[in-house]
Amino acid sequence: MIDILVKEIQKKDNPTVVGLDPRLNFVPTFIKEEAFEKFGKTPKGASEAFLMFNKGIIDAVSDLVPAVKPQVAMYEQYGAEGINAYIETIKYAKKKGLVIIGDIKRGDIATTAEAYSDGHIGKVDIEDEQCIVYDEDSITINPYLGYDSVEPYINNCKNFNRGLFILVKTSNPNSGEIQDLIVEGEALYKRVGRLVNKWGEELIGNSGYSQIGAVVGATHSSQAEELREIMPNNYFLVPGYGAQGATAKDLKVCFNKDGLGAIVNSSRGIIAAYKNAKYTELQFAEAAREAVIEMQKDLKSVL
Amino acid sequence: MIDILVKEIQKKDNPTVVGLDPRLNFVPTFIKEEAFEKFGKTPKGASEAFLMFNKGIIDAVSDLVPAVKPQVAMYEQYGAEGINAYIETIKYAKKKGLVIIGDIKRGDIATTAEAYSDGHIGKVDIEDEQCIVYDEDSITINPYLGYDSVEPYINNCKNFNRGLFILVKTSNPNSGEIQDLIVEGEALYKRVGRLVNKWGEELIGNSGYSQIGAVVGATHSSQAEELREIMPNNYFLVPGYGAQGATAKDLKVCFNKDGLGAIVNSSRGIIAAYKNAKYTELQFAEAAREAVIEMQKDLKSVL
Repeated sequence: MIDILVKEIQKKDNPTVVGLDPRLNFVPTFIKEEAFEKFGKTPKGASEAFLMFNKGIIDAVSDLVPAVKPQVAMYEQYGAEGINAYIETIKYAKKKGLVIIGDIKRGDIATTAEAYSDGHIGKVDIEDEQCIVYDEDSITINPYLGYDSVEPYINNCKNFNRGLFILVKTSNPNSGEIQDLIVEGEALYKRVGRLVNKWGEELIGNSGYSQIGAVVGATHSSQAEELREIMPNNYFLVPGYGAQGATAKDLKVCFNKDGLGAIVNSSRGIIAAYKNAKYTELQFAEAAREAVIEMQKDLKSVL
Repeated sequence: MIDILVKEIQKKDNPTVVGLDPRLNFVPTFIKEEAFEKFGKTPKGASEAFLMFNKGIIDAVSDLVPAVKPQVAMYEQYGAEGINAYIETIKYAKKKGLVIIGDIKRGDIATTAEAYSDGHIGKVDIEDEQCIVYDEDSITINPYLGYDSVEPYINNCKNFNRGLFILVKTSNPNSGEIQDLIVEGEALYKRVGRLVNKWGEELIGNSGYSQIGAVVGATHSSQAEELREIMPNNYFLVPGYGAQGATAKDLKVCFNKDGLGAIVNSSRGIIAAYKNAKYTELQFAEAAREAVIEMQKDLKSVL
């Protein structure tokens, strides 16, 4: 998976991932009206609106970016209908040649992690029928429970050529409350970074990068720099650009000298770009496309 | 929520929560056959089998236990159909008077956490229509991202009288890899325990316990004892009894002197009790009921 991602980043000359984190107030009125007319102001209506919106965004950016990152929470909040829209979004984006990073941040003990892992990046066995359910190419997971909670995902990464991005240093303001605590002379996020690096050793692809990557927030630049050094062959999934406040300059440190090693997420800044006064709602997809081109230029200016 | 849980524990004289973590090999053949005949060996068929199985278990134990804990991973692995079975299980258990602890272990940055929180323990707003989607009474969450990732859940606990159990010390073998690291002279799980205690201060109910509880594994007895001391008014959700190896003696330390303060989970030990040679598959519900009575006796012997 990591080799495909690296190839797509190089081919499109763009280390941008578009975060598909829709909210109803990001969705243009004409789309919502159509969805609510069919299904009412219900979870089903909202899910349909998300799916229509996502398809418009995907169509507008799929030739420009290597990957999309749907945030499952936005869909999960609407129950089964929402999960259906999440899965249909993934299907649609894959058809358009995009790599899927499912932002699910799961973390549970081994026997339970197996169920998450099989559902999302493996196959579920139903009395010897093998079913692919979510079909993400890679997912984010939480390391707080330790290696036995991560192993079931690593097994599926091996068996099905999938990838992981494990939370190391998140982009939110309070991330330091636990992640920055000093353990044996260094911050916890560094310790976790070393563990992730070790866990990924067996899964290094032809690109020189491991299928096991890390989530490293762009909002904490000096910490990202330390992690880059500790984890030279782990790809970073970098949230925090744009709406969360980080600039291209801040996140330059997330990249290696080869110009690779990081993929930068933007959600609101792209999918809600049409909120800028120069666009109308009907131009939501065009605005997203222009925002991607702008972001690509911005990132390239520091690389 | 915590006051209702405590009242139910006292009324039923039983601090047991039944973990509804079905797997296909726990479900009796006659149930699977019926479900697969209707829907095939598909995610829908498997989800239907889980729901039928859960209803049987719930009917058999609802007068004996205060709460059930469905593990969302088992359902989520089957996609939208699975999520539907999870929600229907919750609905059914609530009708039978049970408190629901949704074992979802979510953890994400604030704006995303809001979506999880509104979907699971609040209401989602769809253009001013307020919808209740999952309707758990309480859920488990992961603290690795810090307070701003927890706050959206605390807000809904206040607004909708819901509860949380935050992961502090989990029951799995590798839980110590991160949770036991020493930070500023004490283990990380103790630091997290102190944070959870602080976060819960505002939400202490008439029972003297906070709506914000903690997950503390029974498999680490001396650590649970330390946490009991640090967190006198936080309820413990205690996994690890039975199949994971902890005995009633091991988990005695999770309780306060008032005999309250902990609710002990058993999943396999109850829902798959019929696998014991003395039962047939048709007796799966009866076997679960007897396992609950056995467990209640066992717990009472140490309290």
